[in-house]
Amino acid sequence: MLSALRLSSVSLSLALAFGASGAFAQSANYAGDVGRILASPAFKAAAAEIDREHGRIVDEGIKLTEIPAPPFKEEVRAKEFQKMLQAAGLKDAQIDPEGNVFALRKGTHGDGKVVVVSAHLDTVFPAATDVKVKRQGNKLYAPGIGDDTMSLSVLLAYVRAMQAANIKTRDDILFVGTVGEEGPGDLRGVRYLFTKGAYKDKIKAFFSIEAGSVAGITNGGVGSKRYRVTFSGPGGHSFGAFGLVNPMFALGQAATEFSRIQVAAHPKTTYGIGVIGGGTSVNSIPVSGWMEVDMRSESVPDLKRVEDRLLKIVQEAAEGENFARSTKEGKITVEAKLIGDRPAGSTDANSDIVQYAKAAIEAGGYKPTYGWSSTDSNMPMNLGIPAITIGRGAPDAGGRGHSLDEWMDVTKEPMVKAVTTSLSIVMAVTGME
Amino acid sequence: MLSALRLSSVSLSLALAFGASGAFAQSANYAGDVGRILASPAFKAAAAEIDREHGRIVDEGIKLTEIPAPPFKEEVRAKEFQKMLQAAGLKDAQIDPEGNVFALRKGTHGDGKVVVVSAHLDTVFPAATDVKVKRQGNKLYAPGIGDDTMSLSVLLAYVRAMQAANIKTRDDILFVGTVGEEGPGDLRGVRYLFTKGAYKDKIKAFFSIEAGSVAGITNGGVGSKRYRVTFSGPGGHSFGAFGLVNPMFALGQAATEFSRIQVAAHPKTTYGIGVIGGGTSVNSIPVSGWMEVDMRSESVPDLKRVEDRLLKIVQEAAEGENFARSTKEGKITVEAKLIGDRPAGSTDANSDIVQYAKAAIEAGGYKPTYGWSSTDSNMPMNLGIPAITIGRGAPDAGGRGHSLDEWMDVTKEPMVKAVTTSLSIVMAVTGME
Repeated sequence: MLSALRLSSVSLSLALAFGASGAFAQSANYAGDVGRILASPAFKAAAAEIDREHGRIVDEGIKLTEIPAPPFKEEVRAKEFQKMLQAAGLKDAQIDPEGNVFALRKGTHGDGKVVVVSAHLDTVFPAATDVKVKRQGNKLYAPGIGDDTMSLSVLLAYVRAMQAANIKTRDDILFVGTVGEEGPGDLRGVRYLFTKGAYKDKIKAFFSIEAGSVAGITNGGVGSKRYRVTFSGPGGHSFGAFGLVNPMFALGQAATEFSRIQVAAHPKTTYGIGVIGGGTSVNSIPVSGWMEVDMRSESVPDLKRVEDRLLKIVQEAAEGENFARSTKEGKITVEAKLIGDRPAGSTDANSDIVQYAKAAIEAGGYKPTYGWSSTDSNMPMNLGIPAITIGRGAPDAGGRGHSLDEWMDVTKEPMVKAVTTSLSIVMAVTGME
Repeated sequence: MLSALRLSSVSLSLALAFGASGAFAQSANYAGDVGRILASPAFKAAAAEIDREHGRIVDEGIKLTEIPAPPFKEEVRAKEFQKMLQAAGLKDAQIDPEGNVFALRKGTHGDGKVVVVSAHLDTVFPAATDVKVKRQGNKLYAPGIGDDTMSLSVLLAYVRAMQAANIKTRDDILFVGTVGEEGPGDLRGVRYLFTKGAYKDKIKAFFSIEAGSVAGITNGGVGSKRYRVTFSGPGGHSFGAFGLVNPMFALGQAATEFSRIQVAAHPKTTYGIGVIGGGTSVNSIPVSGWMEVDMRSESVPDLKRVEDRLLKIVQEAAEGENFARSTKEGKITVEAKLIGDRPAGSTDANSDIVQYAKAAIEAGGYKPTYGWSSTDSNMPMNLGIPAITIGRGAPDAGGRGHSLDEWMDVTKEPMVKAVTTSLSIVMAVTGME
């Protein structure tokens, strides 16, 4: 899929550049393709539209930010975003059964596949959070304004600019507002898109537009597995029933063994216990104790290795406790419940999607950086579908994501330049004509 | 104090029995003393009064049960009990600064010391618990009705019976309703009585009247120490800050080492972790994790041994974690906070107070049993003051203490007999004339 994308986009762009429709490229010229796009009257018209629309991008970003969208409660914001997409020109914008908003913009040489350009609808903030946007000069403060609400507004700006400039792309573009990108959402939106949605086998490339500098290319998806491990036993009075198995001892043993796992620094793999709980009174042998465990890795096999070890450790800890103390009233049992599953993956740094992004970023005068993160792109990366997460902001124009004092700077010139540059990446990959 | 009590009561009873006021006993005749008391017109009058008052005992027990008295919130019930004591004839009933209700009934040969006859005012149930008493035939259901509210009502019956029969005792009797006997109260009422109260150095013997069969003598006080152990560290992002010390790993290590302590079966010693908690999100290295630990023993030195080991273990666990992972953002520290401290102790089975109880129980036609528990008597036992906890109920006439379906059977004949028998124990020890 990756190589098919590269050949087709390159062949098309070279064909246009040399006016030789039948010629096939021998090698890609990413910078050349991007330069051609940037120099085109259509892209210039689109860029001018973004410049004119700057105030509207900000206003729509504020409007969406002020509609709370906690994990699993994105519905109201989704409906508003759907309306906005329709107003921007994509009349068929719909909401799928999982809650994702999606709208197709047809290409000229569609091969039945689509390039997804997405941002996520949800924020990390619970329902009661004050999401009113506060403005201080060019700085806007509000939970979720950067991550990722302003990106939804930028998607709308892309659509309006493309419509205004009558831009044609080779590929069909599926604009998507996803649900469930943040923590507990566990990528449910993008997972649906790739495993159940109407386009599930038709996605040839994937962009997640995120907060952060347009210079940053995330082409690695850190995978994670999260478990809630619960040890249960018969319980009893701390004095009268002393000698019975105690789930806290099994949990302690499991935590200790878990803490001894050795992991490599590269590819980076991590593990930890984030939350523990259980028991009701100090003078009882509790009936249960639990821990929530987080494991992450840049490597699929390394993540599997740590996960397998955890699952073995917790079984051994239960067995060890059943051996150490009396089971006459019942045994310690253990349940390891998967509560988070973000697949790991990466997109080759030499792939077209990364190389076009690099070329467009450099053409915009930025210095590209590459990184790993955990975003909607994890899902296609894991499936081997070319995917990157890119920023749509000027460098250092936002911060404090996932905190109540999250902010972004909406100063016009750097913001418009960043948005325009991010659009040029999408245009290069989708084969702007 | 113990031997003084034995000699004086025995010499007095023998003097009465043989009509020889100057004679000194060479050995105690517990059964004889009890028999003499039971046969006396005064005790018979008191027993008849208890029989007549049965309905009132039950009614006052219900009235007190329906006044909630959670730990640290015994005040309303205490005031009502104070009034009831005054109405029963002890006009000087007072409430001490800790919240205990107390009233002195003077003896005839007071030596400046007192024998305490107590029951506890508090229950284990939180403020919102429905404490309305439900009646099914002779069974009353309500949280706290048995443990220990009906015992307060029985104290009132003792007083009324003694007043009605004009009973004289050698010793001054201090009737007390204590606060803080249950869990979190940590014996604060009885502790105050023995360490700060007006009678703190004047208590020569101690009774705690409790739920349970009058046949059961609790002459052993299981000591307990409870700690809340909190491991704290710098915290951080589970992926980004991986490698930093994690308080949950220190806690796990401490739990594991704690679980390995070997204890003797006799004297019985126990330990356990009852409750754990800490952390806020699965994807963070938490800033703290805690566990609540319970240790108990029938032996003062054995309890100390386990306590010392715990305190060493938690320090070692913190140090171990600081050695295993990076402390560049801060170290794991540990705080072990004492949240419960019930002293251990016991009253010799051959002591007067136990032997009089045995004799009175046998005279009542019951078969005495001996046991260990954790009650208000722990405090005097630990101080070497003769103390026992006795029941005031018929065998199998109550149950489900500390549960919402706690019950007691108030059928008249067995209840009156049990109350009368418990009074006879008190009369024997306080030297009824």
